[in-house]
Amino acid sequence: MKMIHSITQLKEIVRDQKKSGHTIGFVPTMGFLHEGHLTLAKQARAENDTVIMSIFVNPLQFGPNEDFERYPRDPKRDAELAESAGVDYLFMPSVDEMYPDEPAVTLTVNKRTDALCGLKREGHFDGVATVVMKLFHMTEPDKAYFGKKDAQQLAVIHGLVDSLNVPVKIVGVDTVREDDGLAKSSRNVYLLPEEREKAPAIYKALTRIKEAVDAGETNVEKLKKRAADDLQAHSGAEVEYVDILSYPELEPINEASGTIIAAAAVQYKNARLIDNVILTVKGRA
Amino acid sequence: MKMIHSITQLKEIVRDQKKSGHTIGFVPTMGFLHEGHLTLAKQARAENDTVIMSIFVNPLQFGPNEDFERYPRDPKRDAELAESAGVDYLFMPSVDEMYPDEPAVTLTVNKRTDALCGLKREGHFDGVATVVMKLFHMTEPDKAYFGKKDAQQLAVIHGLVDSLNVPVKIVGVDTVREDDGLAKSSRNVYLLPEEREKAPAIYKALTRIKEAVDAGETNVEKLKKRAADDLQAHSGAEVEYVDILSYPELEPINEASGTIIAAAAVQYKNARLIDNVILTVKGRA
Repeated sequence: MKMIHSITQLKEIVRDQKKSGHTIGFVPTMGFLHEGHLTLAKQARAENDTVIMSIFVNPLQFGPNEDFERYPRDPKRDAELAESAGVDYLFMPSVDEMYPDEPAVTLTVNKRTDALCGLKREGHFDGVATVVMKLFHMTEPDKAYFGKKDAQQLAVIHGLVDSLNVPVKIVGVDTVREDDGLAKSSRNVYLLPEEREKAPAIYKALTRIKEAVDAGETNVEKLKKRAADDLQAHSGAEVEYVDILSYPELEPINEASGTIIAAAAVQYKNARLIDNVILTVKGRA
Repeated sequence: MKMIHSITQLKEIVRDQKKSGHTIGFVPTMGFLHEGHLTLAKQARAENDTVIMSIFVNPLQFGPNEDFERYPRDPKRDAELAESAGVDYLFMPSVDEMYPDEPAVTLTVNKRTDALCGLKREGHFDGVATVVMKLFHMTEPDKAYFGKKDAQQLAVIHGLVDSLNVPVKIVGVDTVREDDGLAKSSRNVYLLPEEREKAPAIYKALTRIKEAVDAGETNVEKLKKRAADDLQAHSGAEVEYVDILSYPELEPINEASGTIIAAAAVQYKNARLIDNVILTVKGRA
């Protein structure tokens, strides 16, 4: 595996790969890799000639009171893990390399942000879209891999690709979980022991929504209320939201039908965690 | 020359050209072609294996009170002219093809718009940047050609490419003029005969700025005042602005130095015309 820090060098490699007719799979990450990221990398490995992973904690997508500075970083371990997952090129630019100046042009996300994390994280998805657009232009991938755990992000990336005709196929990959159901996340390291013990309640509450829908319940208010009560009672965290929306449009719904997302965000002492399940409601006979 | 109306077809052609190792030169236009556009196409022809021209009057870059509806169109003549200039593929999508829905993600231009046409045409350059980004993704050109007549647009496109690491080389091409100096423009057809007669005064006023600077005058206020008086006296139009700024940053300056632009916009009865000269101030000994 080759480590790359400069955009110029990355672009040279991409050009050479393209010239050789190699397909490129791209896995953008913020590092502090866990099994979720490695699953993305392994799928990219299986589906492409060349795999590029980026590790960049993007300041543009953090709000002023968010955890940019203390977002966990471990580049040495990341490099070992990336190599073990079959990554060919690991791109780890500095902030100055990515943003030598305040960017003259940025992306603005006009849809799919007026819900879930978009409500509290103003400008977050603009920052995500901007950095993903930059990285796509640098890596010119055939396919790019994103985790479904960040389901709203995935919906925004689909919106980006559709709206701007980006010549990249987006691949959404299932969330990887701990044995007890907790979604793998770089931020899990910040859970206190007693919080870690209770955190599986998040996925459990979302799973109960799925079970209730499968059993025929379609009243969204009722489903949400029950999940919120579950979270309140068992997660040991402050519940930021639990919501059920159409997917990927993320529009409010009264009745569960079609493809929907049940999503929650909770705040522990030092970590804000999110999780979701995406499900398709079976039509009635 | 092949005419293309669908994005899917365009992308297939681009993919085939790429596979064959052909370089692509791209000339985005709004049609109603004149010698200025053809100069762009001819340069693209000389520098690339394949030349794609687009003709699309982009509603996103017109304000509600601007001339989107009555912007001049003549697709049949355009096709003949494009072919004569060596265009291989002429892409003429409908508005529905380009914007099947309100775009979920658009581009926002944060710099270089707070001057010249950007002041009066709110959102104009966001619309330009968005459509150019879309067209670049569809055509994946090696080089794209823009006229220097729209100097602010060219500065914004350079900002776009730099900020978002777009893998396209931008080529700025000198303004083509009528024998009397009037810059070629699709909107010239809307000039009344007596306006057409006086319109060369625009370029003359800008040329006088260049001559004064070459003769050693660096006081921007003085240069602007004289040009405004010239325009007022001779252009027969309402003067919207005449300004002198750094280029391509488009920042206000008091003293002419480095590379600068002198630009003007005037309003005739049925046509708003713009023109500029970009010049480099010789350093003192």
